[in-house]
Amino acid sequence: MHSFQELSKQFSEKFQTKHFPYQPEGLYEPAEYFLGIGGKRIRPIACLMANELFGDIESDTWQIANALELFHNFTLLHDDIMDEASLRRGKQTVHLRNGQNTAILSGDVMLIRAYEYLNELNPEILPIIFKLFNKTAKEVCEGQQYDMEFERRENVSLDEYINMIKLKTSVLLAASLEMGAIVGGATRNNCDRLYGFGKNLGIAFQIQDDYLDCFGNPEKFGKEVGGDIRRNKKTFLLIKAKEMVSGTQKAQLERLLENDEEDKVGKVLSIYKDCGIDEWAKQLQKQYADKAFQHLEDVVVINARKKSLRDLAEYLLQRDY
Amino acid sequence: MHSFQELSKQFSEKFQTKHFPYQPEGLYEPAEYFLGIGGKRIRPIACLMANELFGDIESDTWQIANALELFHNFTLLHDDIMDEASLRRGKQTVHLRNGQNTAILSGDVMLIRAYEYLNELNPEILPIIFKLFNKTAKEVCEGQQYDMEFERRENVSLDEYINMIKLKTSVLLAASLEMGAIVGGATRNNCDRLYGFGKNLGIAFQIQDDYLDCFGNPEKFGKEVGGDIRRNKKTFLLIKAKEMVSGTQKAQLERLLENDEEDKVGKVLSIYKDCGIDEWAKQLQKQYADKAFQHLEDVVVINARKKSLRDLAEYLLQRDY
Repeated sequence: MHSFQELSKQFSEKFQTKHFPYQPEGLYEPAEYFLGIGGKRIRPIACLMANELFGDIESDTWQIANALELFHNFTLLHDDIMDEASLRRGKQTVHLRNGQNTAILSGDVMLIRAYEYLNELNPEILPIIFKLFNKTAKEVCEGQQYDMEFERRENVSLDEYINMIKLKTSVLLAASLEMGAIVGGATRNNCDRLYGFGKNLGIAFQIQDDYLDCFGNPEKFGKEVGGDIRRNKKTFLLIKAKEMVSGTQKAQLERLLENDEEDKVGKVLSIYKDCGIDEWAKQLQKQYADKAFQHLEDVVVINARKKSLRDLAEYLLQRDY
Repeated sequence: MHSFQELSKQFSEKFQTKHFPYQPEGLYEPAEYFLGIGGKRIRPIACLMANELFGDIESDTWQIANALELFHNFTLLHDDIMDEASLRRGKQTVHLRNGQNTAILSGDVMLIRAYEYLNELNPEILPIIFKLFNKTAKEVCEGQQYDMEFERRENVSLDEYINMIKLKTSVLLAASLEMGAIVGGATRNNCDRLYGFGKNLGIAFQIQDDYLDCFGNPEKFGKEVGGDIRRNKKTFLLIKAKEMVSGTQKAQLERLLENDEEDKVGKVLSIYKDCGIDEWAKQLQKQYADKAFQHLEDVVVINARKKSLRDLAEYLLQRDY
């Protein structure tokens, strides 16, 4: 058994290799650059951990781990174009560094490279992993589509937002875990539990992310507080607040969303607090986190083997804020 | 055995189905729209024909045929963004019709859908088809990258141009044929011959396309003559002409490429004719076409079975211009 730290180190080291040929440099260098920016490599690590629940890590799992990280980076590369993002993990995004056309094409080839890693799998396991991978890949695109549509829509319900987050973020974590379990020969029930663990963990993580943007300790959070509010980003908190407010507060919130007035962040935060949105978000996050941990609990392997996955969840949910 | 016309009709009818779910409509409707624009469906038809060389068409071949057509359309959809094309087969391109972000994402999901069709394959055949598909997909991206780079470069050699065309256009036709042969249980030698047939046919087709743009009968060609010249497009003819001209003609050609003067097309054409570029191109096209037909000749099956592939090649090379 390996700890979270050990697997994280092992994967990062193995992943630090060339994933593409040298030529044409204009296509492959930007792809290598983007992969080299780093990241927490959560999905491949989760996949390895889920595999190790059921025995030693198999070589197929390392291939899937690579495929998952390549796929994730493909989505980030294309999302950065769509979101007109200038920075990714503090580094220049590919569409600004190398032009938009290169960013599209390097992203495309990154997706194909992900499939090449899958192609290395043991033929007995390939079709079932391939199927879950394809299903998940489509869902992630659907999530991105809903996210873009919601940006332009006046009203988005909480259910719609949760569904979008599930597609855009959670299903890839969930599928990463299930793939590791499948390679490990897990039962259908254990696969489903791990999928459920990842799905709920992903949603809990997003609620927390939205919460911390408003109420986090800036030093711990590592980002400026209130960024989502400034950009009118539809978050768990804003969507819930719009559902709850009425009368003067409703008018005030609407005015704040329409204009960039002084201390907009402070004023929106004060409405959130008045309505108890901060407590509501904490509770909602806890509900999803509890559900996630319950799913992990229900995986039928001895408790000690679950330590690394529990550590991963605790790390993601930083429950000390 | 089916004729070219029969297979063309059968595939077009089968392909006229919904390939995506209904929701989110903003993602999938543009993808369906683009597939519905039509096209000659050459690659899937070639795959079916190659399969039928060796026996009855198998259900796996229909899945591969779908995957090939989806992949081809994915490349067109993204190429249209990169080339800022406004029309595709006389219809509005997706990035103009639905916005650039949708065009990127609908293209992505089209590539994933191609892989879903491959996922339906018989598990014994899946890994080998998957491998050829991935290799080819990467090569097509490389071809597009070189094409974009050549647009910005002053000088491109004939070898570089042929290599670009091979990657961007030929390998997908070649791989389509090989995949059909693989499903049909063809020997390695027969697979290689069919790949060679497709590769050379693709290059011959492109030389012809470049030739017809300059010297074609406008009524038969269906496009205005001289479009490539007007846009300074690097074609077989221009690249060869730049290699051949000297003295006054060289200066004249360079001036014509730099400025849009009156009767530019006529003047460039007259240089082409003076240098015998028209005859050279015809000869070069014939060389590749002959090589293609020789490869088909060398496929070890009785001659009568090759009729549909020969008809396909004759159709593509419209040798009556």
